[in-house]
Amino acid sequence: VMVDRRERIERLLQAEELRREDLEELQPYDVAVVLPDLEPERQIRLLILLPPDVAAGALEHLDADDQYAFLVERLPVNTTHAVLAAMSTAALVDLLKALHPRQQQAVLRLVPPADVEDVRALMAYPEGSAASRMTTEYLAVRAQWSADQVIRHFRHVGRDVEIAHYVYVVDRAGKLIGVTSLRDVLLAEPEMPVADFMHASVVSVQATADQEEAARILRDYDFGALPVVDAEERLVGVLGVDDVLDVAEEEATEDIQKGASVVPLDTTYSRASVWSLYYRRVGWLAILVLLNLFSSAVIAAYSSTLAAVLSLAFFIPLLIGSGGNAGSQSATLMIRALATQDVRPSQWATAFAKEVAVGALLGLTLGALSALLGVFRGGWGEAGWTLGLVVGITMVAIVVVANLIGMTLPFLLSRFKLDPAVASSPLITTIADATGLLIYFSIAAWLFGIG
Amino acid sequence: VMVDRRERIERLLQAEELRREDLEELQPYDVAVVLPDLEPERQIRLLILLPPDVAAGALEHLDADDQYAFLVERLPVNTTHAVLAAMSTAALVDLLKALHPRQQQAVLRLVPPADVEDVRALMAYPEGSAASRMTTEYLAVRAQWSADQVIRHFRHVGRDVEIAHYVYVVDRAGKLIGVTSLRDVLLAEPEMPVADFMHASVVSVQATADQEEAARILRDYDFGALPVVDAEERLVGVLGVDDVLDVAEEEATEDIQKGASVVPLDTTYSRASVWSLYYRRVGWLAILVLLNLFSSAVIAAYSSTLAAVLSLAFFIPLLIGSGGNAGSQSATLMIRALATQDVRPSQWATAFAKEVAVGALLGLTLGALSALLGVFRGGWGEAGWTLGLVVGITMVAIVVVANLIGMTLPFLLSRFKLDPAVASSPLITTIADATGLLIYFSIAAWLFGIG
Repeated sequence: VMVDRRERIERLLQAEELRREDLEELQPYDVAVVLPDLEPERQIRLLILLPPDVAAGALEHLDADDQYAFLVERLPVNTTHAVLAAMSTAALVDLLKALHPRQQQAVLRLVPPADVEDVRALMAYPEGSAASRMTTEYLAVRAQWSADQVIRHFRHVGRDVEIAHYVYVVDRAGKLIGVTSLRDVLLAEPEMPVADFMHASVVSVQATADQEEAARILRDYDFGALPVVDAEERLVGVLGVDDVLDVAEEEATEDIQKGASVVPLDTTYSRASVWSLYYRRVGWLAILVLLNLFSSAVIAAYSSTLAAVLSLAFFIPLLIGSGGNAGSQSATLMIRALATQDVRPSQWATAFAKEVAVGALLGLTLGALSALLGVFRGGWGEAGWTLGLVVGITMVAIVVVANLIGMTLPFLLSRFKLDPAVASSPLITTIADATGLLIYFSIAAWLFGIG
Repeated sequence: VMVDRRERIERLLQAEELRREDLEELQPYDVAVVLPDLEPERQIRLLILLPPDVAAGALEHLDADDQYAFLVERLPVNTTHAVLAAMSTAALVDLLKALHPRQQQAVLRLVPPADVEDVRALMAYPEGSAASRMTTEYLAVRAQWSADQVIRHFRHVGRDVEIAHYVYVVDRAGKLIGVTSLRDVLLAEPEMPVADFMHASVVSVQATADQEEAARILRDYDFGALPVVDAEERLVGVLGVDDVLDVAEEEATEDIQKGASVVPLDTTYSRASVWSLYYRRVGWLAILVLLNLFSSAVIAAYSSTLAAVLSLAFFIPLLIGSGGNAGSQSATLMIRALATQDVRPSQWATAFAKEVAVGALLGLTLGALSALLGVFRGGWGEAGWTLGLVVGITMVAIVVVANLIGMTLPFLLSRFKLDPAVASSPLITTIADATGLLIYFSIAAWLFGIG
């Protein structure tokens, strides 16, 4: 269905003559996808002919640099005026934040003066706050208005609001005192005052709260939009659930990158420069090199054991690798469970008991498997059996211990108010390496009677 | 704000006497959170007194077993009737799917007969399809109706619809031919037929499409809801963006679990049994043990080199660990970029060039660092300098190669229509181990003139 749609749009836009009536049905996103592939003159002609709200919606999907080029350098000024007037304040703020101050000025001069104030107010909120994504184009009414009055008001201003299905009720000071929906207004008796059918107990979010918190409230409560209030409980904007879908994906991307010891990129991979990719990866890699010195120290301490039974070296990657893998698994499961609030930090004891059991089962399975491999490698004589025993016992111990390290570290981090995601796979692997070697050589020295 | 809210609700529900007027303002989610902590009799009393839609909304947040216990075993039958009538079909379907067939029958006998058919139709759609999450309680009108007629219709049925802000237009056969919003209906001239102001080009999703595709469309197009159609383009339901927020989080959780070589859990960590956790982790761990045999084989092949310069063993964890870490980073970045469609499979050459550069920078940094460590460990004599040289050169080579392996594998997998996420951190680490050892011992044998 989607491919057909895209093809139809491409054919439409590549037709000899662009016709306004064909363009009216276009979706902004489709325009944004096709636009870059059109010839420069055709791009301009298309944006001029499109309804301004569609053109604005399409531009919102482009890079800030491309938006700037169209708005300030390439489009005729009357088109730019119309498009900027149709653009949502949130999109305008996103654009301005990505521009150089001089470019910001150039854009702001083209924005309708009435919107400039809203835009400036929004830009003052910190990046990542609930307020930084909200819209200021919502519907606010007074509690004593009748349902019919609200509908008349809506017919007057409804064209410009972005959140149209919720109606927020404020008092004289702008304090949020209730919420209702366009549905309830339509279903109410025309003469009934809003106060009689609104919900007076409103779930809202503070403007400075993290946008992740806002996303969580929207998800838990199944709301379509969430009002944003300042410290005095005054309504300052509304956050739509569609604005938060992006947040969920961005947060997931951040968590995934942290899980591989990458400092989260501030942009997408495709836009990140070589230098910024280097910079966000090298720090953890260097720290892990230093942590790896513990592993070197363990081997050095047991070098006489190793010299006596050189075949012990064969199993180093197998044993410490398996510990690292099991630890990565449990750390990853735990970090995600904490992030989605499936498991609370206070429930560590339950999780610990579970992982003791899971670790033991995994350890016994892998231990049996690797004992066989040890016997196979060491030969069927007594040395072979001893090697098999050492490798098998070590595997059980390493998997159980690494599994518990992986499970415990995220809890410890969250206990100390640190980000549990720091317990990334590479960090757990590195810790499991040193621990695993210590276990391996202790058991080997003991069972072979060396050291 | 949230904590205050929760406390207020707890105080309200623990008050001596529950009063209906206090309960009317409660949010279903808040009730669901507090409910399990109440005494059994109080739970029942609360659910009886609550408005049925709030009680239904609260129950939706509970486990299927708990919902069943309340609905069939604990609540009086008139409360159950009212709650089931108020419950959304989607929630009812979720509940029924999680129950034993005999329990399903017990619940279905209590559902209003008019809803049973809808529920059965929804249950026929495959798990994970767009249709499996949709609601059938939407607003459908005919193109020739006037705006005023739509509003009168809305006043009649609006109480029962779940998606209230979009109005879908269907023809006699039920085919979806247009869409408009309650806003546009209110803003239109009362006499104007819907055909004159609806959007005739509707973005929709096939009922059998993956719910992830539906989530992507909702996100890309910034829609509040997406109509779901069958193969004949007939409207069968509507998917709200709030239903899809859960999808985004579940998909992210799956990707994160795959990234640690865990077969995605079919439930949350806290609900997963020890056995199911074992089962979803042991497969990959065992495969990786077998893959690790390559590493053992490499060390065995170079055992004479190792015997001659035993201190080479000290650096095994450091070198292969760093390769694995760098490879995990690039694999993770690439898998996520492919999953979010930031990078297309066809763009592998650009990504490859980028990773050659990033890998070289990382390799040189870590190489310099580890050469120093090598000299330090080997002493300041000639042997020490040689060891430092071997370790430094090896580190550069390993990091560059492992980085490229990590980056390439996800592309190769997607090329062969396999899930790129299979290139998990543990798999990349294991491959990097064997490759790294081969590089290490080749360079060592060459520079020390052994083997």
